[in-house]
Amino acid sequence: MTDDNAVRPADAFAALHHADRPLLLPNAWDHASALLLHAHGFPAVGTTSLGVAASAGLPDGTRATREETLRLTGTLGGLPCPLSVDAEDGFSDDPGEVGGFAAELQARGAVGINLEDGLGPVGRHVAKIEAVRAAAPGLFVNARTDTYWLGDGEGTLDRVLAYRDAGADGVFVPGLTDPDAVAGLVRALDGCPLNVLYTPGGPTLARLAGLGVRRVSLGSLLYRRALGAALDAVLAVRDGRPAGEGTVPTYQEVQGLAG
Amino acid sequence: MTDDNAVRPADAFAALHHADRPLLLPNAWDHASALLLHAHGFPAVGTTSLGVAASAGLPDGTRATREETLRLTGTLGGLPCPLSVDAEDGFSDDPGEVGGFAAELQARGAVGINLEDGLGPVGRHVAKIEAVRAAAPGLFVNARTDTYWLGDGEGTLDRVLAYRDAGADGVFVPGLTDPDAVAGLVRALDGCPLNVLYTPGGPTLARLAGLGVRRVSLGSLLYRRALGAALDAVLAVRDGRPAGEGTVPTYQEVQGLAG
Repeated sequence: MTDDNAVRPADAFAALHHADRPLLLPNAWDHASALLLHAHGFPAVGTTSLGVAASAGLPDGTRATREETLRLTGTLGGLPCPLSVDAEDGFSDDPGEVGGFAAELQARGAVGINLEDGLGPVGRHVAKIEAVRAAAPGLFVNARTDTYWLGDGEGTLDRVLAYRDAGADGVFVPGLTDPDAVAGLVRALDGCPLNVLYTPGGPTLARLAGLGVRRVSLGSLLYRRALGAALDAVLAVRDGRPAGEGTVPTYQEVQGLAG
Repeated sequence: MTDDNAVRPADAFAALHHADRPLLLPNAWDHASALLLHAHGFPAVGTTSLGVAASAGLPDGTRATREETLRLTGTLGGLPCPLSVDAEDGFSDDPGEVGGFAAELQARGAVGINLEDGLGPVGRHVAKIEAVRAAAPGLFVNARTDTYWLGDGEGTLDRVLAYRDAGADGVFVPGLTDPDAVAGLVRALDGCPLNVLYTPGGPTLARLAGLGVRRVSLGSLLYRRALGAALDAVLAVRDGRPAGEGTVPTYQEVQGLAG
């Protein structure tokens, strides 16, 4: 028997894009990182394709991690919070295959997907978005364009409007940091949530909120900082220096995140 | 054709326990962390069973991660440095099964194994050590006793001598920090390398070296610090604070660790 009054995780996730403050979505790379982030007040978590790839010794952005992405989604799909999965370009040029992959993610518990265009043909990305909506109804589709990531920003507006009109629930423009360009894109999107990547040294979260951004992702930053912090710690031990400031969960705390 | 003059990785790993300075063995939890650590001058890497378990959402020390341990070993087995695998208690009470598991690790590229006694019967751990030596000749067996980890240290000497006499290549006493006790154990072991866990606030690496310790592990410290640093970073972004000091490898650097 279903509870008609219960809010489905997918609906709760969508609502986070239309709240008083932007959704700050931290990107986890494994179960413990996801659960630790959620336990500290983040209402939803994403994944990082770089983290998934680098963990497995595979290159990111090359369609090498389809199986690893499914495995991590299975591991995280039972979390007590909505999960959005970074799925590169869907690991195929074929919209039907991308739709099928999205359905597999949804079956494992994902409520959202990130799909990047890699600056490929607009029509192909539009077809992927339509295929995902058809194959995985209710999955929050965050359509990413790589106009800034891989280019100089040219063509951004045309692309995000095409993706919005194809049914994307939100659009993601990593690398976009100029405040005027952000504000202009928010206006043009006319209610479709804009997601940007937090960039150290760029606009603060509060500034992005004021500009109308609805979702702020961390991308691979947390995974990269995790690697760097592990390195810093062992170099300090090696050199006889204090291991430095910073949070270190106890063994018992990490063990308590399991299961 | 084999090169008779080449030093086998297992021999190179064993030699690191008899060098001028103790082997500082950092414990990785995935491919990128292992390769990053090796790239910064660490001649060998270990794994952390807590990291393996928590990454997968499973509890550590409960024989839940046999498959995950094999998978990580397969991922790391091709690294350009010796790899020692933390294998809990071998995931079985049956010495034959533990020997078979050790052979599987060796086939995937491990040159060392950590086997913990969990304060179980001495004779059972002795039988496991003998079984591993028979099933995986050349694998460096680091026999761990949990006398300090799970108890007050009582029985340490009897256990480590029994494990040494069973053929362990080294013994590991996590939780042992008292300098006099360390020095006494080194003397009693009479050349069999003593491994201790680095403990923040405990003796420095230089002090441990002076006491005759031959190997210093980080256990789960680096993984736990990695989790804590990721949390610190996103909380800083959330609260509009600077993300703090510390190393953050670039996307390109992490991508460069792959493959």
